[in-house]
Amino acid sequence: MTGKVYLVGSGPGDPDLLTVKAKRLIDEADVVLHDKLPGPEILGSIPEAKREDVGKRADGERTSQEYTNRRLVELAEEGKTVVRLKGGDPFVFGRGGEEAEHLAANEIPFEYVPGITSAIAGPGVAGIPVTHRDHASSVTFVTGHEDPTKDESAVDWEALAATGGTLVVLMGVGKLPMYTGELLSAGMAPDTPVALVERATWADQRVAVGTLETIVEVRDEEGIEPPAITVIGGVAASRERVKAFLQNGRNPVEER
Amino acid sequence: MTGKVYLVGSGPGDPDLLTVKAKRLIDEADVVLHDKLPGPEILGSIPEAKREDVGKRADGERTSQEYTNRRLVELAEEGKTVVRLKGGDPFVFGRGGEEAEHLAANEIPFEYVPGITSAIAGPGVAGIPVTHRDHASSVTFVTGHEDPTKDESAVDWEALAATGGTLVVLMGVGKLPMYTGELLSAGMAPDTPVALVERATWADQRVAVGTLETIVEVRDEEGIEPPAITVIGGVAASRERVKAFLQNGRNPVEER
Repeated sequence: MTGKVYLVGSGPGDPDLLTVKAKRLIDEADVVLHDKLPGPEILGSIPEAKREDVGKRADGERTSQEYTNRRLVELAEEGKTVVRLKGGDPFVFGRGGEEAEHLAANEIPFEYVPGITSAIAGPGVAGIPVTHRDHASSVTFVTGHEDPTKDESAVDWEALAATGGTLVVLMGVGKLPMYTGELLSAGMAPDTPVALVERATWADQRVAVGTLETIVEVRDEEGIEPPAITVIGGVAASRERVKAFLQNGRNPVEER
Repeated sequence: MTGKVYLVGSGPGDPDLLTVKAKRLIDEADVVLHDKLPGPEILGSIPEAKREDVGKRADGERTSQEYTNRRLVELAEEGKTVVRLKGGDPFVFGRGGEEAEHLAANEIPFEYVPGITSAIAGPGVAGIPVTHRDHASSVTFVTGHEDPTKDESAVDWEALAATGGTLVVLMGVGKLPMYTGELLSAGMAPDTPVALVERATWADQRVAVGTLETIVEVRDEEGIEPPAITVIGGVAASRERVKAFLQNGRNPVEER
């Protein structure tokens, strides 16, 4: 009998932010296929015997998406209950859509289990709402880490600047100079508030703030590294108004 | 001693999609302040004695945001542990940002606890990933239910059309003719796939699909009503490719 694959979002990394359903499915699964994005705390809580890391190959190269796709089908065909655990939400820059299509094409029953995306929770734990009645009627998520096999950027930064809403860039630490430059060229105000949230909701989370003009310098001074999200727009200034009373269940948000 | 307010996201409505943390905080809170957006299943699981509905007044009018803000401060000043339970995520069109600022201005310690937003989970449970390497490098969330005290729409639909990414409209059933019209005028292709997901993740969830040109008619024929989300873009066609093998832990997704 064919098994089943659950495409499960782990959330941003704090084990307390797993959903009730994700936690139960992880407990009950025969195999949990993962990369390193769910973070050390969540991965560390899963028995080694049922974990299978598809994030790295033995030779240090990344496992190909094709291998992961094949492995999901293979395990399900063996009758296994498989959790494919993905950082954040499986359908937000997680290639979960491709995995779902591959499973369906191979007649494997699957289920999607949403997770908390760091695109919302990351700004949030730093005191920044991604929308605000006074500052932002829309929010757009983009990735700073595009498919390197694509010839040119599929992201139209000029159009994004024109929306007037909040922009959240995932995996965007490395390309920060590129897209802040593009947004400035597109006429976005140099004093637009920008925040970087590194390892959002992890025990050692950090926040750094600046403006569209200064944030690259801030990143370099503070040594902000991936994984981190970038939030751009008026809402990023909310942090200053609330941070004195903003608590964090795990530990105070450290700001260097 | 001053209490504390937790701004907690309930997720889209399935109690299994509460986070572990939200579930625990609801159990431990002295008072849970809520409106009807968390949905009947989650609200029904909270003891009546600690629930306080700020969604409706006795005379049937909606409670003002000012009243909710005042009440949060009042309860915290009485030393209570308060959960302010909001549908989806508190910081996505939830006025959580305003509540956070009001709490900070009144020196009340607070914490933000993210929830699964229906803007992602709604399309997801219908088999639609909001981003996809082949179809969408960005996703934008907008609300179809703007502040009625504003003179004109703050949403620039032309700019949104130009992003080329997925658009997800929350609370957008009523104004569907308005914004589909605006997007068509802005040059978006009439055959752009569109899906409506009504009561996403609730036991009686429904999905209806069409195109930018046909979706208003589909809405009327199917009788789709709020709460529902609208997802617009190439990704909406993914549903057809996966739905035969897409399962739902609660019940099959019904399509009328």
